[in-house]
Amino acid sequence: MIDGSIQAFPLTLNRILDHAAKWHGDAQIATATDHGIVHIGYAALRERALRVSAVLARFGVVLGERVATLAWNSQAHVETWYAIMGMGAVCHTLNPRLTATQLAWMLGQSGARILVVSADLLPLARKIAAEAPDLERILVIDGDAGEAEALEALIASASADVKWGEFDETAPSGLCFTSGSTGAPKGVTYTHRSNFLHTLRLLQADVLGARSVDVVMPVVPMFHANAWGLPFAVPAAGGKLVLPGRHTDGASLARLIAAEEVSIAVGVPTVWLGLCEHLEASGTTVPSLKRIVSGGAPLPPALMERIEGQLGVTVQTSWGMTELSPVGTFGVLSDAVRSAAMSGRPALGVDLMLADESGVPLAEQRDREGRLHVRGGAVIERYFGQERPVTDADGWFDTGDLARIDARGNLMITGRAKDLIKSGGEWINPAEIEAVISALPQVSLSAVIGRADHKWGERPILLVELREDQDISDEDLLGSLRGRVASWWVPDAVIRVPGMPLASTGKIDKTRLRAIYSNH
Amino acid sequence: MIDGSIQAFPLTLNRILDHAAKWHGDAQIATATDHGIVHIGYAALRERALRVSAVLARFGVVLGERVATLAWNSQAHVETWYAIMGMGAVCHTLNPRLTATQLAWMLGQSGARILVVSADLLPLARKIAAEAPDLERILVIDGDAGEAEALEALIASASADVKWGEFDETAPSGLCFTSGSTGAPKGVTYTHRSNFLHTLRLLQADVLGARSVDVVMPVVPMFHANAWGLPFAVPAAGGKLVLPGRHTDGASLARLIAAEEVSIAVGVPTVWLGLCEHLEASGTTVPSLKRIVSGGAPLPPALMERIEGQLGVTVQTSWGMTELSPVGTFGVLSDAVRSAAMSGRPALGVDLMLADESGVPLAEQRDREGRLHVRGGAVIERYFGQERPVTDADGWFDTGDLARIDARGNLMITGRAKDLIKSGGEWINPAEIEAVISALPQVSLSAVIGRADHKWGERPILLVELREDQDISDEDLLGSLRGRVASWWVPDAVIRVPGMPLASTGKIDKTRLRAIYSNH
Repeated sequence: MIDGSIQAFPLTLNRILDHAAKWHGDAQIATATDHGIVHIGYAALRERALRVSAVLARFGVVLGERVATLAWNSQAHVETWYAIMGMGAVCHTLNPRLTATQLAWMLGQSGARILVVSADLLPLARKIAAEAPDLERILVIDGDAGEAEALEALIASASADVKWGEFDETAPSGLCFTSGSTGAPKGVTYTHRSNFLHTLRLLQADVLGARSVDVVMPVVPMFHANAWGLPFAVPAAGGKLVLPGRHTDGASLARLIAAEEVSIAVGVPTVWLGLCEHLEASGTTVPSLKRIVSGGAPLPPALMERIEGQLGVTVQTSWGMTELSPVGTFGVLSDAVRSAAMSGRPALGVDLMLADESGVPLAEQRDREGRLHVRGGAVIERYFGQERPVTDADGWFDTGDLARIDARGNLMITGRAKDLIKSGGEWINPAEIEAVISALPQVSLSAVIGRADHKWGERPILLVELREDQDISDEDLLGSLRGRVASWWVPDAVIRVPGMPLASTGKIDKTRLRAIYSNH
Repeated sequence: MIDGSIQAFPLTLNRILDHAAKWHGDAQIATATDHGIVHIGYAALRERALRVSAVLARFGVVLGERVATLAWNSQAHVETWYAIMGMGAVCHTLNPRLTATQLAWMLGQSGARILVVSADLLPLARKIAAEAPDLERILVIDGDAGEAEALEALIASASADVKWGEFDETAPSGLCFTSGSTGAPKGVTYTHRSNFLHTLRLLQADVLGARSVDVVMPVVPMFHANAWGLPFAVPAAGGKLVLPGRHTDGASLARLIAAEEVSIAVGVPTVWLGLCEHLEASGTTVPSLKRIVSGGAPLPPALMERIEGQLGVTVQTSWGMTELSPVGTFGVLSDAVRSAAMSGRPALGVDLMLADESGVPLAEQRDREGRLHVRGGAVIERYFGQERPVTDADGWFDTGDLARIDARGNLMITGRAKDLIKSGGEWINPAEIEAVISALPQVSLSAVIGRADHKWGERPILLVELREDQDISDEDLLGSLRGRVASWWVPDAVIRVPGMPLASTGKIDKTRLRAIYSNH
């Protein structure tokens, strides 16, 4: 090999906060708390995060060890993330919307001895502890620790003289279990390199394109799939990070957006529905907001229209999953044609492929429906604790989604392979029915599931949550499908629900809907 | 270490063209030739580049072997780059503005057996060949090969069934010799990883931020410092790449900008001076142009004002050097305060430090002048063929530039350490004098060099090239310095030059100026 070369520069995540602290030291992180909004600059936050590392080191945390967090989006949670990852430990995020038994099982898998918890989640943490024998210590952030151990008190006496980095960039940095609809939850292990490359992908101008003048509010939780990578990408760009804490209802978000002049807000569709409804009811506006990034679940076209019309913002769609770190595609803001159904295009660093049911690539990749496969520097190879890769011989990961890709490279998710309903030996795709129903102005949320049927095996039924003060007959609901889907796809029944059950990630919880309605 | 993880994804440069071909296959590369502008899409270009790899493989080119190019910015040169790098060979770019003897010496260093040359540079290539015993074969691109061997003919019979990538990402991809002002030229070896990370840095919204809708014209040559990374960054974003070929005078560029609707143009200040003068003389405009990126040499404030005023574009300043791949800092477009003297800020992936003469970091890094040091994933560690690193114990590379950094992180280059004039035992900084003189509306270019003086050792003299139809007296020139620099810094003489000598990179050639004027 040729002699003479470039410096080593391991892509470890501590570099992101190091960079933010040095070059954007006064740029702020704002957190909504029960006692108002608190602020800190990146330089001060880094200093505190180093102290948290010192606290963890004092408790014997070593390279590669898992440390768990059960916390909302807050400054203290960000500090804890960088503290754990910076010292080379692995941040195992727990989702407070799961049960203590589920979370204790996950802790058993990761073997974490230390759990950092938001004060109001302490009761849940104690229940988890009762079922998690490995757990040795609970450290409380985000409020009054009561008789428990407060991380803040430990920080005060800790030194910031801690070494970050200086381990291999392929070292694990995070662990997140997906609450799959079938089987036991599966863990996705992120690495420093994968999260760093994911960050650089997000920062591309045709993706999130965060800039130092941007004020970005991730409503997507830090306990799920890296909060879409925003606690890395926003400091990396030197932007302001606004964290909503535990309140993500429309009124709380509207207040926070106004107070901090949020320009870009990121979250699942139901969050934006809540914001729209609050603003409509209260007659208030959020003039600072310029862009809303939506993802995590299909965005009803009517909701996209409503958000853009009512809020005067641009909606940027996206698609991803926990196994992708999580971003796969992002809507391109300068594209002439945008729509709620288009989840955007893949940027350099991720690649898409459509295959048939057995994983063989479709001969024609454009304007055909196929099973979506993904490959890239932030895409899973093996689940936690498993030896067998979940990628095929060519490195493709099967997402389980059905999709089309148009001539310009825009991804359209057309359904979940697992969601399909088999009726009389033929497949019905609930997503196509839901897309039509969700476009009705009276409809807030809709879901189509299969119901056991002795003649056809399964038949579709439609569950709807209407918008407040709106009404529509069953006939009109089902009539809207005429000519849009095959006549035998039209659901056998309409069930009105006052509130659609949502899973911990904000998506409609079809597992719960099936449990209640599939055999009834 | 924890079990379960993310896919391997080696950062090799072929992935960039693979991505562009798959996701932006119809996006264009346009090249100005003597017979009009020719176009090709990324998908077709990739197919041709694969065939070039096959041709090189047929000639026995192996992993790590150097293959040289002596060519203008053209489609064929881009194909040759990706062909060489994609197959794991090393692209050794030669600067046609150097002498045959200099270039033959560089070829001797790299050991390249094959030279790819633009047709009109064939006479120079033959002179080089006469002095370069290792050179076995010359392949002609960009025009009529005459009796020489045309690459195009070989492509026609080659197969595109070639493997790219599948080597380590730290493998070398490119080699570029810097024509230093003292000593023998030194080679900088780029790696796949360093250029890939450099590309991702450029794509950040606060740096170049190239998007798929952008039409980008690199006037900066591909034979020098990767053409600032644009032949990687623009395809990576799916943008249109417009290549000027060998003609970079104002009239040629204006025609090309108009024909291809260039929105972003990138080059050294003298190029923009030429464009401004042509547009003024011809009474034409370039309405598609939105942004000009300037770098490679100090940008006179008057020229920045002139460009922005006359062309109606935003000037984005930058600073870099061959040893940095080459971008160090980039002006941030959204910054409230911009100026010609500010070279912008470092984005994630590069770090700056100011030191004293012995390399010790200044205690206060802001608003102090120091010697600029750099560290990062695309910064040199060792020159070609040298065992000794040029970085210090902490990994810092000494740029030789003098600089300040303001409170917001903006870099201001204040001079070259080597340029300083020692007069009566005290230092005079030519850059500060030049900044005042260049700001005069009558002045096109200015340079201050030291002249031997038996009393003071050295004394500064001022060389100026005035704008056409402009005049100013020596008294007024020197009078403009009053109160702006120390009185003993005022040059002893003013010498008017009809045309300032420019080095091969477009910077003022002070080595030549010194050779002519320093002892006279």
